[in-house]
Amino acid sequence: MFIIQGSAREGGNTELLTERLTQGIEVETVRLREYDITPIVDERHTAEGFQPVEDDMKELVEAMLNHDTLVLATPLYWYGMSGQMKLFIDRWSQCLRDHSLQFKERMQGKRVYVVIVGGPNAKVTALALVQQFKHICEFMGMTLEGYIIGRGTKPGEVLHDAEAIAAAQVLNANWRQAADE
Amino acid sequence: MFIIQGSAREGGNTELLTERLTQGIEVETVRLREYDITPIVDERHTAEGFQPVEDDMKELVEAMLNHDTLVLATPLYWYGMSGQMKLFIDRWSQCLRDHSLQFKERMQGKRVYVVIVGGPNAKVTALALVQQFKHICEFMGMTLEGYIIGRGTKPGEVLHDAEAIAAAQVLNANWRQAADE
Amino acid sequence: MFIIQGSAREGGNTELLTERLTQGIEVETVRLREYDITPIVDERHTAEGFQPVEDDMKELVEAMLNHDTLVLATPLYWYGMSGQMKLFIDRWSQCLRDHSLQFKERMQGKRVYVVIVGGPNAKVTALALVQQFKHICEFMGMTLEGYIIGRGTKPGEVLHDAEAIAAAQVLNANWRQAADE
Amino acid sequence: MFIIQGSAREGGNTELLTERLTQGIEVETVRLREYDITPIVDERHTAEGFQPVEDDMKELVEAMLNHDTLVLATPLYWYGMSGQMKLFIDRWSQCLRDHSLQFKERMQGKRVYVVIVGGPNAKVTALALVQQFKHICEFMGMTLEGYIIGRGTKPGEVLHDAEAIAAAQVLNANWRQAADE
Repeated sequence: MFIIQGSAREGGNTELLTERLTQGIEVETVRLREYDITPIVDERHTAEGFQPVEDDMKELVEAMLNHDTLVLATPLYWYGMSGQMKLFIDRWSQCLRDHSLQFKERMQGKRVYVVIVGGPNAKVTALALVQQFKHICEFMGMTLEGYIIGRGTKPGEVLHDAEAIAAAQVLNANWRQAADE
Repeated sequence: MFIIQGSAREGGNTELLTERLTQGIEVETVRLREYDITPIVDERHTAEGFQPVEDDMKELVEAMLNHDTLVLATPLYWYGMSGQMKLFIDRWSQCLRDHSLQFKERMQGKRVYVVIVGGPNAKVTALALVQQFKHICEFMGMTLEGYIIGRGTKPGEVLHDAEAIAAAQVLNANWRQAADE
Repeated sequence: MFIIQGSAREGGNTELLTERLTQGIEVETVRLREYDITPIVDERHTAEGFQPVEDDMKELVEAMLNHDTLVLATPLYWYGMSGQMKLFIDRWSQCLRDHSLQFKERMQGKRVYVVIVGGPNAKVTALALVQQFKHICEFMGMTLEGYIIGRGTKPGEVLHDAEAIAAAQVLNANWRQAADE
Repeated sequence: MFIIQGSAREGGNTELLTERLTQGIEVETVRLREYDITPIVDERHTAEGFQPVEDDMKELVEAMLNHDTLVLATPLYWYGMSGQMKLFIDRWSQCLRDHSLQFKERMQGKRVYVVIVGGPNAKVTALALVQQFKHICEFMGMTLEGYIIGRGTKPGEVLHDAEAIAAAQVLNANWRQAADE
């Protein structure tokens, strides 16, 4: 299981909820804020196509491609995913044209879970973002298996969102059970 | 009227549709790809709060604050706004805490128009993004006055989307008429 | 082309916009308010399955199945389609189990257009309904080809929504051109 | 607490999940399928306005108005609420114009919870319906306090949706605790 952590803050609510979700499960986590990801330059229609970029994107993508299950975790920033996560996903357009990666072939079929943490109204205001992730999954041939929307603004607050914690525990138990079988 | 152009490509479909929309109208345009905007570091809950950042954000924000009408123009990248535009808007969280800007006071009441250009299914797949802009406007006390969803992938293709062009012309005519009154 | 008119009011804004859309085109129109459609009784899981219902449903469905293009026209009532239209669509669950109809086989591939007329904010508040129609089309294997959201509350008001009228004219011209070819 | 049950089937999944949610709590439940509710005739713009209708609507509305908390429970039919529930809510337009009811004054401030049960993908495909309920609540000045989306098609299946059951238990515990205080 591969955790793509889009939070801009260490130990923030999004990380706390993701930890609850993945307790006792072997995961590989990348915190996007610790990597250098350049905004995409749209060269789809230039004669030369996309030019190689010197940053950490390839390393991240190759790690991601080795897993069957992805957890996309992001705070709800302005009713969308964090800018860092958006920069990462925008670059998938370039990955799709890098034949050495076989990006689409290796992404399709992956199981995706989404973790979003926002303010008190996030259970409603995050729905457009869930829909966006659904579109992304459909485009890539991945399945959006589930999502959890947590509520928390001050540090640690999400741990008091009993509904989100319960949902995390249910998913966690399902995963552990599947791992045992 | 202030055009915030989120396109990553010069002369791309998003720019073409925006030009049609604003033909003959006095506008100030910023192309976000020409500016340096640093991803937000979430320091809302640190003792010192947000630290000053050396980039072009303040210049952009001060230009924006001088206008009553904003056009947010973005290609539909992965069913959301472009990463560049997301970086820009994410930083509004920092602006909200910079008392010298009076950000919220000066943003509220602004009239917002949204231009989105995506692929052939964009009229449906862009709806989550429209909803996101609606939430953003509500949070800032701005009014989402209208939006246009254009369809075009290859360079220039959006000019053949008769429905989008017609919508642009109607809005353009309304604006010119209002300017004459 | 088959117009399913969900408006509860004769000559209302939804009918006016639909007329503009279909001017000069041969259509068959059913006004759902003139038919008797019984709410579905969910008998999917009873031993006997769905029982025959004495109302106008079968007549409507057989007319609908003879067309390749459907226009679903409804006022925006409480941010959804009208109750009459919902009663009609709910009964499709029963049609799906009536083998004499070959409902799914004959519905799939149909081209669907949606017309919605609501209040001044309808361009945003009707988006959930557009999404719902998209889901319905996907489930039935139909394609949602386009939609128009008009704004109008008082009788005739939608005719002053220049954007909606322009969109209707563009679609109308496309249809006429296709018919000439 | 007032339960408005929109299910068309006795003992179906929507009722089962609602029972779990409200276990041990004093509630008044109306099953809309047991009442006669006439589709609205839109007479907003006629000289005489809405004409009185002989059905069970007034009885239902008066019962509803006596409660501070509403639970709107519906199966997901065609990605929306059931037709019966839509007929009921459509008639609120008439209630708004019946001055004897003081409908808006008495509805505003109510706390609303939504229960939706659909098929295996309901956690995503029901989101447009959640958004619709959000719009309805905003229009009426009510607060959408929470929602649960359950998955179940065959009778009893929703009881195996551990995530939905956990969410129901959390809300139930919150309500009981609030009642004890």
